[in-house]
Amino acid sequence: MKALQYRSIGAKPEVVEIPKPAPKAGEVLLKVTAAGVCHSDEFIMSLPKEKYVYGLPLTLGHEGAGVVAELGAGVTGVSVGESVAVYGPWGCGLCHNCAQGMENYCLRAQELKIMPPGLGSPGAMAEYMIVDSSRHLVPLRDLDPVKNVSLTDAGLTPYHAIKTSLPKLVPGSTSVVIGAGGLGHVGIQLVRALSSSTIVALDVNEEKLALAREVGADHALLSNDAAVGAIRDLTGGRGANAVFDFVGAPPTTKLAAKVAGVLADIRIVGIGGGSVPVGFFDLAYEVSVSSPYWGTRSELIEVLELARKGAVKVEIETYSLDDAPRAYERLHEGKIRGRAVIVP
Amino acid sequence: MKALQYRSIGAKPEVVEIPKPAPKAGEVLLKVTAAGVCHSDEFIMSLPKEKYVYGLPLTLGHEGAGVVAELGAGVTGVSVGESVAVYGPWGCGLCHNCAQGMENYCLRAQELKIMPPGLGSPGAMAEYMIVDSSRHLVPLRDLDPVKNVSLTDAGLTPYHAIKTSLPKLVPGSTSVVIGAGGLGHVGIQLVRALSSSTIVALDVNEEKLALAREVGADHALLSNDAAVGAIRDLTGGRGANAVFDFVGAPPTTKLAAKVAGVLADIRIVGIGGGSVPVGFFDLAYEVSVSSPYWGTRSELIEVLELARKGAVKVEIETYSLDDAPRAYERLHEGKIRGRAVIVP
Amino acid sequence: MKALQYRSIGAKPEVVEIPKPAPKAGEVLLKVTAAGVCHSDEFIMSLPKEKYVYGLPLTLGHEGAGVVAELGAGVTGVSVGESVAVYGPWGCGLCHNCAQGMENYCLRAQELKIMPPGLGSPGAMAEYMIVDSSRHLVPLRDLDPVKNVSLTDAGLTPYHAIKTSLPKLVPGSTSVVIGAGGLGHVGIQLVRALSSSTIVALDVNEEKLALAREVGADHALLSNDAAVGAIRDLTGGRGANAVFDFVGAPPTTKLAAKVAGVLADIRIVGIGGGSVPVGFFDLAYEVSVSSPYWGTRSELIEVLELARKGAVKVEIETYSLDDAPRAYERLHEGKIRGRAVIVP
Amino acid sequence: MKALQYRSIGAKPEVVEIPKPAPKAGEVLLKVTAAGVCHSDEFIMSLPKEKYVYGLPLTLGHEGAGVVAELGAGVTGVSVGESVAVYGPWGCGLCHNCAQGMENYCLRAQELKIMPPGLGSPGAMAEYMIVDSSRHLVPLRDLDPVKNVSLTDAGLTPYHAIKTSLPKLVPGSTSVVIGAGGLGHVGIQLVRALSSSTIVALDVNEEKLALAREVGADHALLSNDAAVGAIRDLTGGRGANAVFDFVGAPPTTKLAAKVAGVLADIRIVGIGGGSVPVGFFDLAYEVSVSSPYWGTRSELIEVLELARKGAVKVEIETYSLDDAPRAYERLHEGKIRGRAVIVP
Repeated sequence: MKALQYRSIGAKPEVVEIPKPAPKAGEVLLKVTAAGVCHSDEFIMSLPKEKYVYGLPLTLGHEGAGVVAELGAGVTGVSVGESVAVYGPWGCGLCHNCAQGMENYCLRAQELKIMPPGLGSPGAMAEYMIVDSSRHLVPLRDLDPVKNVSLTDAGLTPYHAIKTSLPKLVPGSTSVVIGAGGLGHVGIQLVRALSSSTIVALDVNEEKLALAREVGADHALLSNDAAVGAIRDLTGGRGANAVFDFVGAPPTTKLAAKVAGVLADIRIVGIGGGSVPVGFFDLAYEVSVSSPYWGTRSELIEVLELARKGAVKVEIETYSLDDAPRAYERLHEGKIRGRAVIVP
Repeated sequence: MKALQYRSIGAKPEVVEIPKPAPKAGEVLLKVTAAGVCHSDEFIMSLPKEKYVYGLPLTLGHEGAGVVAELGAGVTGVSVGESVAVYGPWGCGLCHNCAQGMENYCLRAQELKIMPPGLGSPGAMAEYMIVDSSRHLVPLRDLDPVKNVSLTDAGLTPYHAIKTSLPKLVPGSTSVVIGAGGLGHVGIQLVRALSSSTIVALDVNEEKLALAREVGADHALLSNDAAVGAIRDLTGGRGANAVFDFVGAPPTTKLAAKVAGVLADIRIVGIGGGSVPVGFFDLAYEVSVSSPYWGTRSELIEVLELARKGAVKVEIETYSLDDAPRAYERLHEGKIRGRAVIVP
Repeated sequence: MKALQYRSIGAKPEVVEIPKPAPKAGEVLLKVTAAGVCHSDEFIMSLPKEKYVYGLPLTLGHEGAGVVAELGAGVTGVSVGESVAVYGPWGCGLCHNCAQGMENYCLRAQELKIMPPGLGSPGAMAEYMIVDSSRHLVPLRDLDPVKNVSLTDAGLTPYHAIKTSLPKLVPGSTSVVIGAGGLGHVGIQLVRALSSSTIVALDVNEEKLALAREVGADHALLSNDAAVGAIRDLTGGRGANAVFDFVGAPPTTKLAAKVAGVLADIRIVGIGGGSVPVGFFDLAYEVSVSSPYWGTRSELIEVLELARKGAVKVEIETYSLDDAPRAYERLHEGKIRGRAVIVP
Repeated sequence: MKALQYRSIGAKPEVVEIPKPAPKAGEVLLKVTAAGVCHSDEFIMSLPKEKYVYGLPLTLGHEGAGVVAELGAGVTGVSVGESVAVYGPWGCGLCHNCAQGMENYCLRAQELKIMPPGLGSPGAMAEYMIVDSSRHLVPLRDLDPVKNVSLTDAGLTPYHAIKTSLPKLVPGSTSVVIGAGGLGHVGIQLVRALSSSTIVALDVNEEKLALAREVGADHALLSNDAAVGAIRDLTGGRGANAVFDFVGAPPTTKLAAKVAGVLADIRIVGIGGGSVPVGFFDLAYEVSVSSPYWGTRSELIEVLELARKGAVKVEIETYSLDDAPRAYERLHEGKIRGRAVIVP
């Protein structure tokens, strides 16, 4: 079968022919219907040899959807022919965190060398993929896999970040969303669907600001020092109640720190290498800062319910598997509006 | 192998010889090290034919511990020889509740005919038992299975009830525990370990009141109308902040309603057939009443950690498998101090 | 000045001339701009002498708004001329509940004989009213007092009930709102603004069902036994995640119990004399039932922010103070669409 | 009357004679029974002129207790002769945060120039003090003011920090308390009273480690690099679930970052000038870092309830008002075991 693989450090990903896998006991074989392209794919392919820990060759694709093609022995809960989305942050399933469905925070994944598909295990950018357990599948039912596959990361990641901040997003609150790209334009819709918070979107790109307005931002501003003053004004001097930074680079984390008001949450979601220093003299009182990673099993179910209700839609561009390398090029050039999806 | 079975409606449970089971793909075979005796066993054996839904013959025992004897194909996360406790409220593992480890509230168990061991599936009162998935096992490590097996229900059930009420158990609060038997004497220890709440234990039996004091109740009173006045006095007229009713019979639910103060929680845990009516004129303002069932996967891990720390100990009487019928007789007569455990 | 008073048990309220009050130290005098008519006014006027505890004569009106006319000595935080809404459930301000702004659950109000305006203290249906502390005022700023005064009870009460249930209203959840009258039609808007839950409104009146649809209900059904089946179908057999019963009469509380699924919340808000019995065999697992009363100080601020954002609007009919008795007649006849407001 | 004042930048505090104040409408005059000495007093007296914003001369003392001596007009809720503790972080009482009793996070204090006693307003180190509202008083009842006055800050501040982290302190969790001085030795007792978390105390001083063990730490270790390894070992490699840093200096914040495990909370309470940087690559997944300030009104009530129950005791040294300057000297020298209290 065809697969898109990262095969050597520093190389471009390429389409290759590899054997179709067979599911062992407990595993599920999917015929892939869609796979999402993500910045973190680009990030790991940019790592030098000594920091790269995902194995080679690596079939890419940690956002996946498919139709169940075959069940390994002992698999329950899914049926051949069912359309499903893949929950990517695989864990052991048994530790205290996994026992709550927080496999993204599995306490034993590293020790047991459990790795997500596309980030260590063979991913979704192939005609078929193996999922290690039916608990990592969520039924799509009537949802179009191509339009919704990105929700497994670009939806789930902002959803998790926002859900943990919902107690701060009371009526009268203000949320700042930094970066209106793949994750950010979904994040804006999520804040809108889950709360009555006023949304201020920030980006350096006017087209993305237009997209931000389209998907529900109350205000969309260029991400610069003037934004700090503008947000102070919009909030009567109090600052934002939550800041979701989907860029996470030094200029945006700095901005996040400046616009966060008393008791605000800052969530650094983007992997741009920025940090917010937290100490008694650094921020408004009791601003809570964290950097979440992906989301939980039940949260993926919830994100897909939002899609089913029409409350969240991902802007996508589609590519064939053969064309997948081009999707990564456009991603690198910052040209993708929303999210790219590979359709094998 | 030997097993204790309920074989026909209205009969006493009896020890019989049945074939030793073999694990299928995904399943785990345990050599049982301990099995707990519970009031709910007695309850289901008291049901008339038309209400009895657990199948016959039924191997009893929903509190189980064992050593892993054999793994079915594809099982991960446990090893042969490991000492484990069984999480009893089995669910589908995939629905929105199971995805958070709340298999006690599985949304599909009924539809899929999934039943807990000893309550539909073959239970722990046998030399060997099958557990359907490794996710229903928690490592015991250094914990004695005989002393701790009861925690899988008599610990987990009160733990769940109390944990959901912890926000009410602030310093200065008062908790009322009704019934100082199997679950209640564990419940008292849990409130003590998890909060600084003042504990008032109520029971109709002086010996159980003595046990209540021994395990940490601040006050232990006869469960009657005088108790209502005593609790009013102890709380400066405000009433209790939480009431955990491990009896759940009409006299105790009536008492629970009377002693609950503004914003209190009432948890009806016992299956004695009582109810608390909730309407605008029935109780103090915003008293929240619910009847929980068993507990979640992560909560069982937490209960066992409390045992490991010495914060909770179950009073037990042990019986051999051959002697198990006598344990049920003593239970019926209300003679067991704490909890009975069968050691095959 | 003119005031609408309830003057003797069983009589109709009447417009009378009484002296204009003067604020003592700590008090605030308001020139009333609007006062809301509520079912609970009617309820207390229906009470027999032995149950009536609100004093006579009683100036009605527990929903009030006004302009600050005069400040007693030592008052801080409000200015003469400011337009404000009155927070009605007055408490001592000092106890553990009041210290969190939950004056609706003041632990000492009864002992200290503190009573809300219009429900013991002189109310808002007069040209002027005394408010005992500036902490019981919330600035209206740009909000029209006539259009928004009802939010101080008909907004705040459902807001409090719904806010405490928000953790249950995850994407994919279903909320049932029983009664689409004064409180219910606001409740529907609040569920919509605060969550993505699917809303099913139930009422016995087709016009109110039309209003329910207008303000955002996804489904609006006649409140009868057929509704139980309809809700089961809409939820794939799982039942509702939250039921807000703004009627609270025996037929609706019975319905609430039937449609609530596992882990659901039932909130009995209406004072129609119904109850939901809670015991192990009464409801789906761990359905949590409570009967809340009014709301907290910070919640009133939040409700007004929702109004400011356009997320909640009260349907109103206005009456002069002289015409106020007629408003109560129409209320009694069930003819008011939404809420009646007196404009002195 | 006598008062301890800070009178000019860089000077030592001195005992002076000033006029006894009289309460205005809304205010309360206390005859001071005890006043606590705090590191933050020393901190503000170390500030250069351009950073010092607390006014001169400043009567010190933000931890205060007294007997009500006189009530201004309109004051309710307290009586002359009552023994009370002072809630120090005064706010406006009306904003969204104050409406929940979070006056420590008042949204308008700065704008309205509201300052805590001893930190801008005249403090408790005097024979008499003015408290601006009865809502800033909590009855001491049977509690000794001298032994408990420190709880108003050295109790309330760690209590607030710990209470917000209680959901992380489940059975099996580990809490690290850095600094076993004034706040830290209370913090250890609070974690013990409120949870079953295993407590690891860290300090650079062996005597303070001895105090830590005495008040309930499970482990007490020198605060250095070896501690990182020790905590990893104690937690099976998982790291701590919460870190309360009562020092907050660069070496301790660095340590905090290293020992925090996945999903942990770090609370920087000490004002030692250190920071924890938070970004995707800085810490274990979703470690949440914040720097809280003091506590809320209801939390002070709760802390005093813990003292009433014997669950928290402050180690104190007492000094007369005349001797107060010496207390600050010993504080500066790090010689105080626990907390110093001035008894006028």
